[in-house]
Order: sequence, then C-alpha cells, then structure tokens
Amino acid sequence: MSATLTFADAQRILTAGLAKAEEIGQPMNIAVVDAGGHLLAFGRQDGAIRASIDISQRKAVTSILMNAPTAALTPLVQPGAELYGLEQTAGGMVAFGGGVPIYREGELVGAVGVSAGSVEQDVTVAEAAAAAVKG
Amino acid sequence: MSATLTFADAQRILTAGLAKAEEIGQPMNIAVVDAGGHLLAFGRQDGAIRASIDISQRKAVTSILMNAPTAALTPLVQPGAELYGLEQTAGGMVAFGGGVPIYREGELVGAVGVSAGSVEQDVTVAEAAAAAVKG
Amino acid sequence: MSATLTFADAQRILTAGLAKAEEIGQPMNIAVVDAGGHLLAFGRQDGAIRASIDISQRKAVTSILMNAPTAALTPLVQPGAELYGLEQTAGGMVAFGGGVPIYREGELVGAVGVSAGSVEQDVTVAEAAAAAVKG
Amino acid sequence: MSATLTFADAQRILTAGLAKAEEIGQPMNIAVVDAGGHLLAFGRQDGAIRASIDISQRKAVTSILMNAPTAALTPLVQPGAELYGLEQTAGGMVAFGGGVPIYREGELVGAVGVSAGSVEQDVTVAEAAAAAVKG
Repeated sequence: MSATLTFADAQRILTAGLAKAEEIGQPMNIAVVDAGGHLLAFGRQDGAIRASIDISQRKAVTSILMNAPTAALTPLVQPGAELYGLEQTAGGMVAFGGGVPIYREGELVGAVGVSAGSVEQDVTVAEAAAAAVKG
Repeated sequence: MSATLTFADAQRILTAGLAKAEEIGQPMNIAVVDAGGHLLAFGRQDGAIRASIDISQRKAVTSILMNAPTAALTPLVQPGAELYGLEQTAGGMVAFGGGVPIYREGELVGAVGVSAGSVEQDVTVAEAAAAAVKG
Repeated sequence: MSATLTFADAQRILTAGLAKAEEIGQPMNIAVVDAGGHLLAFGRQDGAIRASIDISQRKAVTSILMNAPTAALTPLVQPGAELYGLEQTAGGMVAFGGGVPIYREGELVGAVGVSAGSVEQDVTVAEAAAAAVKG
Repeated sequence: MSATLTFADAQRILTAGLAKAEEIGQPMNIAVVDAGGHLLAFGRQDGAIRASIDISQRKAVTSILMNAPTAALTPLVQPGAELYGLEQTAGGMVAFGGGVPIYREGELVGAVGVSAGSVEQDVTVAEAAAAAVKG
C-alpha cells in the first residue's frame, strides 16, 4: 500500500467522522486534505455553523503545515509563550484542537479538520475520522 | 410570512436602528445582511467613524457564520480560552458585541451589525434594529 | 451649502435610484460613497443578483478613484488600448458603466454605483440617483 | 419538501457528479454550495488537478452570485463585450462553463461547480450532478 491518501481513503475518513458526529449528536464540518494540504473531501452536516467551513479546512491545513495536531499548538501561542502570533502566519493557521495529521508507514499523508462543536467534540470526531485509515 | 428577509424588512431594520442611534446620540454604521451573509441595506450617519463601515458588516456576517450574537464570542476568544484566535478565521470575524442574528419561524433569516459607539451602545442599537422584524 | 455629501444626501440619492429601478422594472444594487470612496448608503432590491453587491460599490469607488464615470473607462481598457489592465489596479476597479461621480460647487463630493441590470439600465439608474442632489 | 438544500441533497448531487465523471473517464473536483454560496460537500477524484479545488468552488459560488450558469457569462466578459472584467469582481468569479445553479419550487437553493476536464466535460458532469435533485 503506497504512502498516499486516495479519494477513497478520504471518503472513508469523512464517512467515519460524519458517523461519529451523529453518534455524539453534534453536526460538524469535516475536511480531509492530502499531504500538500489540498482539499480531497468535505462535508457540512445540517445545523453545523458556517464559520466552520473555513475553520475545519484551516485546521487540516495547519496540521499539515506544522506536522502536528492543532491541539498541540494551543499552549504555544498564548501571550508570553514561545510562538505567540504563530496563527497569523502561513496564510492563517488555527491553534485550537480539531486538526489531526494522518500518517501511513511513518509518512505524513494527509490530515483531517473538524469544526462546529466544542474543541473536545471536534477532537473526538477528528480522531475517529483519522482512525478510519490507520493501520 | 415566509422565512426570508425582504428588502422592505431590511429597510425597517435599518430605520429602527438609525432611530435608536439618534435617540442615544451616537452616530452609527448599520448593516443588514440576509441568511447567506450578503448585504441588503446599509447606512452611515454623519460623524460615525469609517472603520465601522467594515466592522458593522463584519459583525453582521459573523452573526450569520457563528449563528450567535457577536457579544457571545468575547469570552471564548480571550487568551487561554477555548477559541483563542477564532476571529482570524472565516475571512475575519468580529468577536465583540454589536452583531445580532435575526430569526423568523425559528430559522436564521439574516443579521444586523452596528458599529461606531461603545460596545454597549452598538448592542443597544443592534437589538433595537433587530426587534423591528421580530414577533 | 458645503461641498460634502451628508447621510441625508446619500439617502436621497439612494431613494431616487431605487425609484428609477422600480420604474424600469429592474431590481438593483445601489451604493453611495463619499469623496473618500467610503460607503454611506446601500440597498439591494428583492431579486437583484448578489454579485452586484460588490460591483455596485466597486463602481462607485472607481468613479472616485478615476474622477470619472465608469462608462468612460470601457474603451480605454480594451486589449490594445492605452490603459489595458487598469481594472486590476487600485484594489480592483470596474470599467463598465454604472458608476457616476457626484459634484457640488465644482468639487467631487461622492459617487453612486448601480449594478444588476444591463449596463444601459445601470447607467440610467445611476444618473437618476446622482441627479437627486445636483443643483 | 422545503426550498433548501440539505446535506443529504448535497451528497446525492456530489455522488451523481462523481458517477458521471467516472462514466466519461475524467477525474473531477466537484463542489456543492447552499443558497448563500457556502460549501456543503466536496470531492476530488484521484488524478484531478488541484487548481480545480478552487475553480470548482468558485464556479458554484459564481452561479449563486450571478443566478446563472457560468457558461452564460463567457460571451459577456470577452474584450469589447458589455461585462469585460466582470470576473475580477465579487471576490473573483469564473466566467467559463461548469457552474450550474439549482432551483427548487422556483427558488435558487444552491449550486454545483465542476472543474478539471474540458469545459464541455465540466458542464456535462455539473448538469448530471444538478439533475440528481431536480424534478
């Protein structure tokens, strides 16, 4: 299996995320991007806020650009912390949870971003989505 | 009466806002948008600062994108709070008061954004404006 | 009477434009800006396309920036003509009719931009609107 | 059935478009937006160029903003034609085929944008996609 994310993979990731969102009763925006941060698949469930169309995609792209889950950035960007202002760079990043990188055979192959619920809910759904293609 | 905001509705909202602004003696920028966040009506009173041309529209759009009054966002975006950095997303949002969503038959049909006074004044005028089509 | 456009002036311009649009049976977006190109008043009639929210404002601003009606720019920006590419500059201008500068006592005090109909209709409504404050 | 596009509708539109793209052997980017031009569903098939991530979404949004298929704009924006330069406005529009508005009960409820093939292929897929919720 090659270390790239196919559209079929992206659809599986999206479907798993949508199912988890339904399970926890929070409609979501879910975005899946490839290793270059380019959108592969997206869905917005009925009732999910529209600000999160952008935020979900931006979380996924941030995960690619930083090679890290967006939740890991939260302490780093606070006033006085080392990367204060980071979110203003690279075209605008998101520094709260809900973006999760996806690895295959040790390589970063894509990311998923989830937004519309609480940060905890977003992370829960993003992890469930990412798990759909993990080993 | 259908669940959309007509131009006549928007004019009533704007007129009510302008009247309230005069009543409290603070010239304002007032913007009314439809359910998709697209501008329907706008007015800037003599003496109101011009930065608020953008701010008032952005408050209205933020109310649509977040499905919430902008005042509700203020605590959420502070340093250390859950959505720190939120205002950088979705094309730029405003996280202080003065944007108010408008509902009809339970559906989000539009929003009004007011800016140029103190936040308290902006909220007062926005609520008076929105009330023109409620009930 | 001083050489500036008040909000009351802008409302008269807008009202005259809206009336002309109804008279010719073409719903319009109508924007009125001050001498600095900053929005004073705006209205979008039911049925007018939403692309014209931006186009009407851009026509008004272009009239200020060029100190000319936008219709005057059309021949100048064609391939091979002297100002080919002009519309890409200054933040994006519009080089077809519907933007009309407004003068008072020989000074440029504002402009009106109209969009959503044919160029001929847009110009007709813009001129009717501008005439509401002319000497 | 109410005059809005649900996420289930958007998924049906996307699925129909993906199927038509496979049938004609041209991988595509397909975007579905709601009546306000906000993204509902998106898919990029393996091998489809990534420039079309943006183009497909922009075609869908253009169809909303202009209330017309993007193919209808092509003659209007040519040098010498009435709306030369139109595509520079409203945040950037696309004036070639592949964007198709979707109506329900006579109301504009959304649009689909398709990009990555020839314009003829894009239009074919967009029409097949839109047809999934018509009638």
